[in-house]
Amino acid sequence: MKRREFISAMAAAAWAAPGPPMIKGGRLRTHLEELSVFGRPAGGTFADGVSRVAYSDADVAGRAYVRKLMEAAGLKTRIDAAGNIYGRRAGSQNSLPPVLFGSHIDSVPNGGNFDGDLGSLAAIEVAQAFAEAGITTRRPLEVVVWQNEEGYAFNNGLAGSRAAAGHVDPGELDVVWNGMKKADAIRKIGGAPERIGEAKLGKGAFACYLELHIEQGGTLEKTGMQIGVVEGIVAIDRYDVEIRGFANHAGTTPMPERQDALVAASELVIAVNEIVRKEPGRQVGTVGQLNVSPNSPNIVPGMVKLVVELRDLSAKKVAGLGEQIRARAAEIAARTKTQIEMRPASHHDPALATPEVQQSIEAACGKLGFKHMRLPSGAGHDAQAMALLGPMGMIFVPSVGGISHSPKELTGWLECAQGALVLTHTVLDWAAR
Amino acid sequence: MKRREFISAMAAAAWAAPGPPMIKGGRLRTHLEELSVFGRPAGGTFADGVSRVAYSDADVAGRAYVRKLMEAAGLKTRIDAAGNIYGRRAGSQNSLPPVLFGSHIDSVPNGGNFDGDLGSLAAIEVAQAFAEAGITTRRPLEVVVWQNEEGYAFNNGLAGSRAAAGHVDPGELDVVWNGMKKADAIRKIGGAPERIGEAKLGKGAFACYLELHIEQGGTLEKTGMQIGVVEGIVAIDRYDVEIRGFANHAGTTPMPERQDALVAASELVIAVNEIVRKEPGRQVGTVGQLNVSPNSPNIVPGMVKLVVELRDLSAKKVAGLGEQIRARAAEIAARTKTQIEMRPASHHDPALATPEVQQSIEAACGKLGFKHMRLPSGAGHDAQAMALLGPMGMIFVPSVGGISHSPKELTGWLECAQGALVLTHTVLDWAAR
Repeated sequence: MKRREFISAMAAAAWAAPGPPMIKGGRLRTHLEELSVFGRPAGGTFADGVSRVAYSDADVAGRAYVRKLMEAAGLKTRIDAAGNIYGRRAGSQNSLPPVLFGSHIDSVPNGGNFDGDLGSLAAIEVAQAFAEAGITTRRPLEVVVWQNEEGYAFNNGLAGSRAAAGHVDPGELDVVWNGMKKADAIRKIGGAPERIGEAKLGKGAFACYLELHIEQGGTLEKTGMQIGVVEGIVAIDRYDVEIRGFANHAGTTPMPERQDALVAASELVIAVNEIVRKEPGRQVGTVGQLNVSPNSPNIVPGMVKLVVELRDLSAKKVAGLGEQIRARAAEIAARTKTQIEMRPASHHDPALATPEVQQSIEAACGKLGFKHMRLPSGAGHDAQAMALLGPMGMIFVPSVGGISHSPKELTGWLECAQGALVLTHTVLDWAAR
Repeated sequence: MKRREFISAMAAAAWAAPGPPMIKGGRLRTHLEELSVFGRPAGGTFADGVSRVAYSDADVAGRAYVRKLMEAAGLKTRIDAAGNIYGRRAGSQNSLPPVLFGSHIDSVPNGGNFDGDLGSLAAIEVAQAFAEAGITTRRPLEVVVWQNEEGYAFNNGLAGSRAAAGHVDPGELDVVWNGMKKADAIRKIGGAPERIGEAKLGKGAFACYLELHIEQGGTLEKTGMQIGVVEGIVAIDRYDVEIRGFANHAGTTPMPERQDALVAASELVIAVNEIVRKEPGRQVGTVGQLNVSPNSPNIVPGMVKLVVELRDLSAKKVAGLGEQIRARAAEIAARTKTQIEMRPASHHDPALATPEVQQSIEAACGKLGFKHMRLPSGAGHDAQAMALLGPMGMIFVPSVGGISHSPKELTGWLECAQGALVLTHTVLDWAAR
């Protein structure tokens, strides 16, 4: 997108907007660029991505920057007991539950500058637009920046939004990761772990929760859509699989006598891929982690541990795929003289977006003239924790090449601004209800 | 084997032996048990195996124990510049090249108590038997305990025997492993790395090199043989394979758009297994090492590195298998939208045992009444370095279940003694030539 096209598209968007709150795409870009320095590789540029793992010094610095932006946008900020940052803008009826919107700013190691950052900074931009337009909405507005969405730290994501939904796991605060106890990590970012229960929002605590996010897949780009209206966040089942063969000398063990755990594991990887692909639909299945033991070139592998992950909007379909894979694993074990144990490791229910919120987002797209489509979110988001408490909706913008969790993660500046505009109008709608 | 059977078998062996040098099976067992404490897991027993990695404190302690045994057997010991331990027994014609025999005492981590240990301690037992019988052979005898046969340390095996053959790799002494420079490691075991060239033996430095070793495979046990007469040590080709796909979010990347490096790698693992099994013969092929990147359950694998290892007594056959695998890799890469690079990592020529030495071992078996067969060694041994310098032969004894490089590695005490007896008579034969 050339600069001229960008300006004229923004002008068209401004023309299409019915009311005064007008986000500034250039300012949003500046903020994304400014935030990107916290966790940037030494000597790198914006294109080199970011490592802003939750609770790291980069995370602490990024959070301070974001809080300053919130204050500058006229929001009254606070950090809750779980370490989430809230910024409130009063409405005309402040006893009503607010419209809550935001995202997160932590990243995976070696991640990109849009995942979470866009939704967080766009939320602040929306608040600033309301302030600059001098609009007082009926309901108050609350911008939120959740802590540790990615869960790279402590291997447990949605940490802040789960606390807000009252779903802190037993013993979660005592877990140690990288020499740091989770309670101390929360303290490091300004939370009060001993009072984490206070972070819990009641049911009906908000009129609706909205989150703008990059798609992280290639569907919008491929179909030429500007906005994705999220139908829901998929169910995710994970299985820990352990394949036990027999480790032996790779030079002296004749082929027919081998019980090679890696040969069995390879058959299982291919089976997962085949089973998931052969059914119609948008389900995905992945073996992303696989470890061989003893993992030496001259030893027949004695054990392989791997993780099978299955996702679809339908929990039933996900469970059915798991059963098919289990049956195939039994066949493979018998044929390869190995033992295969497949243990359910985690199950996440799907979180469906509220139909009224989806319709509101579609109405905003209609007013703004943006091409849009409904689609599921294959990735998890803080919005799924909020879906437990009240109406929820998500707005997706296209990811170039469908790439995410990578320095190559990219969404055009125009697309970022378009997403922020849709968010603005959806907030306007719900703040008036 | 019950104790009674053991004693009667030993008596039969003694009866069959033509001359006075008589090894003591009970003493050999005691020495194997005593050596096993150096590197034994804390609180373990003999059955828990050993971790006596070269240059470790356990290796240093084990070497001191072995050198003491050599001295007690009347051998005159020295440590050469490479760190190998030699023990010499004079003959009647000391200007003649000696009969050289021995093995190694270093182990892989979590290894067994027979690999190397048996050949080393049996060699000392043979020397002790000659001393106790008061026999002076025509040629002098040299017992040798090579250092770092396994090559777990510095990922480069046959370190001592290669130095004796004059095959120290360029820069080998400067390699750092586990924070230790190889030169310092050799110094730690009493070598003089700055003079490592002095460890080189000339061609014709010995009349013949003999090594007793456990089979490490299941062929002798399965066929009911007592002794294996080694035809040679197989050729080994290794390939480093790098499979590059594209790492992406496992939730948001539709199945048809994936470039999953692990799916491609799994197809290759299966192809290696199929290609190696389908030809007649005793060739073996293994993918023993495989590493996935980034190796996270929620990321489609972007890269896999693995090692393909192929072995056979025929170097030509090994090369042919490599070519078949390369062709299949190209097909897999095209089908899976990945790139597969297959780079030759190492090539070891086969080391054929000298026909006269094989015949001498067979003659000893004949005299002793032991059932024997010829077979290749699928594993590498110090003997292959010695084959570069002069006549070489190896004696195998059965491995229970074919298990090696494991605490479960086991050879019966009777079979150990039988191997030592065959070694004794083969040494007698060559020492008289």
